[in-house]
Amino acid sequence: MKATVNIGLLGLGNVGTGVLNILTHNADLLCRRTGKKLMVRKILVKDLSKQRGLKMPGIHLTDRADDILDDADIHIVVEAMGGEFPAYDYIKKALKNKKFVVTANKEVVSKHKKEFFELAKKNKVDIYFEASVGGGIPLIRSLKVGYAANKIQTLYGILNGTSNYILTQIEEKQEEFDDALNDAKKMGFAEADPTMDISGLDTAYKLTILAAVAFKMDITVNDLSYEGIQDISLKDIVYAKELGYRIKLLAIAHLLDKEEINFRIHPTMILLDHPLAAVRNELNAVFLVGDAVGESMLSGKGAGASPTGSAIVSDIIDIAFDTKIGRFYDTQGKAHVSIEGVDDPLYINKRNLEDELHQPSLVNICDIYSQFYLRLAISDSPGALARITTVFGENEVSISKILQKNTVGLDAEVVVITYHTKEEYLRKSVQVLTTLSVVKHVYSVIHVGF
Amino acid sequence: MKATVNIGLLGLGNVGTGVLNILTHNADLLCRRTGKKLMVRKILVKDLSKQRGLKMPGIHLTDRADDILDDADIHIVVEAMGGEFPAYDYIKKALKNKKFVVTANKEVVSKHKKEFFELAKKNKVDIYFEASVGGGIPLIRSLKVGYAANKIQTLYGILNGTSNYILTQIEEKQEEFDDALNDAKKMGFAEADPTMDISGLDTAYKLTILAAVAFKMDITVNDLSYEGIQDISLKDIVYAKELGYRIKLLAIAHLLDKEEINFRIHPTMILLDHPLAAVRNELNAVFLVGDAVGESMLSGKGAGASPTGSAIVSDIIDIAFDTKIGRFYDTQGKAHVSIEGVDDPLYINKRNLEDELHQPSLVNICDIYSQFYLRLAISDSPGALARITTVFGENEVSISKILQKNTVGLDAEVVVITYHTKEEYLRKSVQVLTTLSVVKHVYSVIHVGF
Repeated sequence: MKATVNIGLLGLGNVGTGVLNILTHNADLLCRRTGKKLMVRKILVKDLSKQRGLKMPGIHLTDRADDILDDADIHIVVEAMGGEFPAYDYIKKALKNKKFVVTANKEVVSKHKKEFFELAKKNKVDIYFEASVGGGIPLIRSLKVGYAANKIQTLYGILNGTSNYILTQIEEKQEEFDDALNDAKKMGFAEADPTMDISGLDTAYKLTILAAVAFKMDITVNDLSYEGIQDISLKDIVYAKELGYRIKLLAIAHLLDKEEINFRIHPTMILLDHPLAAVRNELNAVFLVGDAVGESMLSGKGAGASPTGSAIVSDIIDIAFDTKIGRFYDTQGKAHVSIEGVDDPLYINKRNLEDELHQPSLVNICDIYSQFYLRLAISDSPGALARITTVFGENEVSISKILQKNTVGLDAEVVVITYHTKEEYLRKSVQVLTTLSVVKHVYSVIHVGF
Repeated sequence: MKATVNIGLLGLGNVGTGVLNILTHNADLLCRRTGKKLMVRKILVKDLSKQRGLKMPGIHLTDRADDILDDADIHIVVEAMGGEFPAYDYIKKALKNKKFVVTANKEVVSKHKKEFFELAKKNKVDIYFEASVGGGIPLIRSLKVGYAANKIQTLYGILNGTSNYILTQIEEKQEEFDDALNDAKKMGFAEADPTMDISGLDTAYKLTILAAVAFKMDITVNDLSYEGIQDISLKDIVYAKELGYRIKLLAIAHLLDKEEINFRIHPTMILLDHPLAAVRNELNAVFLVGDAVGESMLSGKGAGASPTGSAIVSDIIDIAFDTKIGRFYDTQGKAHVSIEGVDDPLYINKRNLEDELHQPSLVNICDIYSQFYLRLAISDSPGALARITTVFGENEVSISKILQKNTVGLDAEVVVITYHTKEEYLRKSVQVLTTLSVVKHVYSVIHVGF
C-alpha cells in the first residue's frame, strides 16, 4: 500500500482549481515519481452551495478554515487565496500546527517571510513558495540549490506578465498604452483594477522574495524604489527600437563593491539582441550572472492556473519526497506513523528555509549610475538646445546622443541619451529643465541598460 | 562547531580545478547556506610530482584511487575525470562503499545509469549528475522536481556548446565549417579531436540522461538516431536565414500518442523568432513543453571549468543539506556520528534516484513526420525540375517551396522545402533522386522544425 500525503486546499479560485486539476489529471505520474498518493482531502471555499462541476471523489468542502488547519490528518496546507488577510493568519496557524505550507501568495510572503521562516523552523516544518515568483518557472528552487554555489552578482527579472504583455502589444500592434491595457484585460492578462501590476508593486513584492532566496537578505518593498509602466507611450517604444532597444519592466538586483546592494524596479531599455528582449507577452524570465555559472536565464509562463499550479505541485512533490524520513508531525508534535515517519529532532531543513536572513547594506537608487533616455518638447528656437545641454553639463550629466524628432508648430520633440551618470544628477537636471521656458514638457525619462 | 562534509576529488584537470576553486573561493558563502563546511580532503591526480600552484591547505594528493574510495571519512566522491574507464569502476566502488557520488561524466552516466541507480539505492546513497548535461544550467534538478508536476510533452535541447559555437560562427563570420571549427579550437570550445561533439554523439549521451530524468525511461545511444553538424555548409545557413530560419543542432524528445516516444538528434532549421534561435555560441538551452507549465526554457553556459564546477558544487550542496538526517554511512554501513547523523533504514531518496526507469515504446525516426529542406544541383535543362517533382510526388512527399538559387555552368542550384512528410518517404525520394541523371548532387537534407 502506498503512503498518502493529505492536502488541505485553501481557496478554489483560478489557482486552487489549477492545483486540483493537475493532482487529479497526473495522479498516476505523481504517484510513480514520489512513491506516494498526493490526495486533496479538504477544500476551503467561500460558498458551499455553489455548483462547481468538479470531479472530486472523497473531497470534503468546508467554509471554515479551522476544519483544515486543526485537522491532524492534513499534512500540507496549500494557500491559494491571495491577498494579505486572512492568508497571513491561516499560514501562521498551519505552521504552528506543524503543517507544511505551500503558497503562491507573493504579497503575504513578501511582507511576513521572516516570521513565517522562523515559525516554520521552530515547528520543524517548511513553507514553500515557488509559485509566488515567476509562475511555473522553477526559479526559487534553482536559486536555493541549482545556483547556490555562486555569489549572484546581478539579477534581472521580467516578473510581471501583465506589464510585459502590455509592452509587447504596444510594440507589435503599434497601439497606445490604454488600448494595450484594454486588450490585456480582454485576454485575461490584466485584472479589472490593474494598479498592482502596472505600478510595479507586484514586481516589487516578487523582488523582495528573490532577495531572500538569492541573497539571503530581508527587505520589504519600502527598501527599494519601484516605478511601473504607466507612463510608457508608443512613441518611446518606437524610438527605443530605432535606437536598437526594447523597453521591459525590469526587477534589478545589483551587488556592488563592499557587499552593498541595490534593488530597484523600473522600465528599462535593453538591447534588442539581449535574451531578455526576446521574452514576449505574458512570459516571465530571470537573467542572472553568478560568479561561477556566468550568465544564465530561466523563462516561462509567469501566471495562469496551470503554470502556477505546476509550481505549487512541484512544492508538494518536494515535500512528499522527504516524508519517509519523518517530516510530518501531528498537532501534538508526534510524527504521523501513517507516513512511515520517525520523529527526528535533528532535522532542520536548510534546503528550503531561509532562516538566516540578514539586513543588507542598501544603496539608494539616487547613487546608482545608469544611462538615460529622455524625450522632451522644446521650443523650436535658436539657442534652445544650447540651454538644455548647458543644464546637463552643469549637473555633471554627459550626453551621448541628441536626436531631433518631429516639429509640431513651434515645438520640437527631442530625444536625449546620456552617458552613465548618477541618478541623482539626472534627476536634478530634469528638475532644472522643467523650470526652463524653452522646455515645454519632459515626456519621459527611461533607464537605458545593457 | 560546524559539521564538515568531507569530499574526495577524482581528477584535477579543468573541471576538478573549477570545483576546487569554487569551494575555496566561496567557502564562507557555502558554509552559511548549508550550515556545514564543505572540505576537499583528498584529490586523485596522475602525477604527484607536478607543480600546481594551488592553495590547498590540508588537502592530501594521491595517485591511488583507493586512498579515497576506501577512506571511511570521505562522504562524497566527486568524479571529474571523464571517459568511461576507470570512472565506471571508481563510481561503482564509491557507491558500494556507501559514498555519495557527484559526476560530470555524461558518457559513464549514459552507459551505466541503471546500474548506478540500483547500486545507490541498495547502499542508501545517491549519484548526482547535474553537470553532465547543460553545464551550469540547473536542468536535471528542474526536471526532477521543478517540472515534476508535468507530463513533459516535448523537449528540445541545444546540448553541445562546440556545435552551437561553430554554427553561430559560420553565420556571424560568414565562414565555412572548417574555418569555424578551427576558430572553436583556438577559443577552447572544441577539442583537438572534435568528433564526439560535432558528430552528435555527445548530444546523444546527454539526451539519454534527460530521458531518464524527464521521462523515467532507460535508453542508450543505440536507441536513438543521431546526426551531427559535419555536413552543414555556409550556404545552407545563408539560405536558411533567407527563409526565416536558423540551423541548430537539436536533441529532440517527442511524446506521441499511446505513450510512444521518439528521441533523435539532428541539425534543425528553427524559426528565427523562436527562443532557441537566440541561443548563441557556446551557450546551451533546453526548451520544453509540459502539460501544466506550458512552454519554458532554461539556458546558460554548457561547459567550461566554472559553469561545470557550479553544477557539481550545487550537487554537493544538495547532499550537504540532508546530512543532519543521517545520510552518511561509513564503509560498514554505520552512520557517521561526526555528521550528526542517525541511521535511518527507512530512507530512500526518491528526490534524486531514478529507481524505476522503464523501457519505453520507441518510435523510429523513419516514422516521424517533419518538414525538410533539400539543396540540390540539377542540370539546368527543360524538364529537369519536372523529373524531380515527379519523384517527390511518387513517394508521397508534397512540396511547399522550390527556389532556384544560382546557376553554375550547366548546373542549377535548387532549394526544396517540403510539407510535413514521413521521414521514410523523404529518404526514399532522396535515394531515387540520386539515381537521376538530371540530379548532379544532393548537397544537404535538413529537418525544418517549428
